[in-house]
Amino acid sequence: MIDTDSVVIGAGPVGLFQVFQLGLLGLEAHVIDVLPQAGGQCVALYPDKPIYDIPGVPMCTGRGLSAQLREQARPFLRSAPDGKKGVNLHLKQLVSSLEHLPDGRYQIETHQGLILRCRAVFVAAGAGAFVPKTLPLPKLEGSQQLHYHLDEVHEGRLPWSGQHLVVVGGGDEALSAILSLSSTEGSDAPSRLTLVHRRAQFQADSALACDVQALIDQGRIDLVVGMPTDVELLDGRLLTLLLLGPDGQTHRLALDHLLVRQGMSPKLGALTQWGLALERKQISVSPATFESSLPGVYAVGDINTYPGKKRLLLCGFHEATLAAHHAAAQLNPEAPQHLLYTTTSPLLHERLGVLNPQK
Amino acid sequence: MIDTDSVVIGAGPVGLFQVFQLGLLGLEAHVIDVLPQAGGQCVALYPDKPIYDIPGVPMCTGRGLSAQLREQARPFLRSAPDGKKGVNLHLKQLVSSLEHLPDGRYQIETHQGLILRCRAVFVAAGAGAFVPKTLPLPKLEGSQQLHYHLDEVHEGRLPWSGQHLVVVGGGDEALSAILSLSSTEGSDAPSRLTLVHRRAQFQADSALACDVQALIDQGRIDLVVGMPTDVELLDGRLLTLLLLGPDGQTHRLALDHLLVRQGMSPKLGALTQWGLALERKQISVSPATFESSLPGVYAVGDINTYPGKKRLLLCGFHEATLAAHHAAAQLNPEAPQHLLYTTTSPLLHERLGVLNPQK
Repeated sequence: MIDTDSVVIGAGPVGLFQVFQLGLLGLEAHVIDVLPQAGGQCVALYPDKPIYDIPGVPMCTGRGLSAQLREQARPFLRSAPDGKKGVNLHLKQLVSSLEHLPDGRYQIETHQGLILRCRAVFVAAGAGAFVPKTLPLPKLEGSQQLHYHLDEVHEGRLPWSGQHLVVVGGGDEALSAILSLSSTEGSDAPSRLTLVHRRAQFQADSALACDVQALIDQGRIDLVVGMPTDVELLDGRLLTLLLLGPDGQTHRLALDHLLVRQGMSPKLGALTQWGLALERKQISVSPATFESSLPGVYAVGDINTYPGKKRLLLCGFHEATLAAHHAAAQLNPEAPQHLLYTTTSPLLHERLGVLNPQK
Repeated sequence: MIDTDSVVIGAGPVGLFQVFQLGLLGLEAHVIDVLPQAGGQCVALYPDKPIYDIPGVPMCTGRGLSAQLREQARPFLRSAPDGKKGVNLHLKQLVSSLEHLPDGRYQIETHQGLILRCRAVFVAAGAGAFVPKTLPLPKLEGSQQLHYHLDEVHEGRLPWSGQHLVVVGGGDEALSAILSLSSTEGSDAPSRLTLVHRRAQFQADSALACDVQALIDQGRIDLVVGMPTDVELLDGRLLTLLLLGPDGQTHRLALDHLLVRQGMSPKLGALTQWGLALERKQISVSPATFESSLPGVYAVGDINTYPGKKRLLLCGFHEATLAAHHAAAQLNPEAPQHLLYTTTSPLLHERLGVLNPQK
């Protein structure tokens, strides 16, 4: 269990800046994100598209902005253990619960087993946690033959080794998975690979699509055009995938494992269950403090709402700043509350690890 | 007279970003600043000091930040006439009055004679207009022998040509003025130059101080140590400056002209007279719209106050953005109000003058 000042949920641009502002105010933060890298949807959805409205940055990309924000937060961010303080950026972690402890602190747990206790929580979750888009096949819920990730290892081996694996999807995520699986060799390789997509054309990077088409033409993978509508099970074991074909008929496809790769979509998920006042799926906050209806739980960036709210990154930066100041005043009521400036304050220079060049 | 959508008072970082946000929303803005360059106190007071807390900019200087903000606002900023649209950045202009016209528009005038009519006003005046620090010599008010600027030309010539000029001050502003005046040649030159400072030591750039000390040692300028306390006039004409010397005695210094160069300080000045609700010398605004108590008059950046306010640049950028959106909705109620993103909107790309590289 990790005991810390604060936890930031979401390592997107606003979450990263939240860590920076908390660090300036002398508060330690741990950050959690479900994605495998920091940057949020800026990196996951539009890494190379230009952004023109970050103040003082006439043009940047989503990836470039995230890298700069990460560099800015670097004095307060440890993504690899340094032996002394440990990691405080926790990736591939999906928050499952938030509990208000009797002593006023919060306990946060993730599906992956991380447990943190803190005195302030900053929800910077954007449109929600980016999780794989699911197939509407309720019979498969909890099945060990249904997969969303390529690295799902069960009992030391890939679950589909030596078996017939069906991959569903026609975008980059599905095609890159098929390419990777078709090049697997030895005992890890599936015995057979089938790609299921609703059309014979792919909506993916053209080079990727060409490579996959070549594998289909060579007969190394099968392509089945159709939409999954149902499954057949025997004693709880998946046997057949039912597909609605372009001919309007239902076709049956025997299989051992199903890998769904239809992209990611954001889900609010667990945080709708925490008792936070919501307004149209967004967390209601005070525009003076960005505190939610739960004391000590703040919401910043696209996930919050208040009168006048605009879902712009630059607004999220402001919100993270005011939230950090309010939390710092609450957590350290005896500390002097006058505003320090990074241009002039020796204390802030010390926290940032910079030498004051004016000295 | 200039007729426009909006006027921004103050060309500091927040004023420049205000122009950018208004431009994105299709509104023309004219900007007024009393200083001879854009950038506000970032450039006037700490051009070379590092700033660490601009989101996405790990480190910049005040001058660098201002240059970037000016570059960002460039699609909407015209500081030199282009023959077609004219200038909309008006420097060395001090706003004197704001009048609410019967048709709902505002008329803004400057001491320099500029007159603008607009439908929305954005006060981005920071700590106020940077004006020269004055001497407390009420008898000299309005005198044509009292000066603050080196470029005050009266009837085609410098007012002190061929006469005894006394310069007051011991900082960079006074010493650079003395240096410049001492190198003036021909009929523009004063017949005699005296520097008055309260101490024999200067608080200025050391190279500047050395150069001035050399002029004193060479007898090319006189140094008088003392504090101006009063003046003597005859028929309204300044004859003598009274100085309290370090010996505790009052000394009399005959002179023709007085040039006060004691630095700049910010003054709220005229805008305290406009009927705006103020709270401890700051303009009270709504945190949803950043509108003041006068409809259509917004206040953004260090000059405003609202619950939770922090006087940070990044907060001013947020404020300017929400103010621009509110003004746009008020001025064009029929325009669609959904938020456009610079990453994806062809309309914003057109306004910014960029080609969409994704097309």
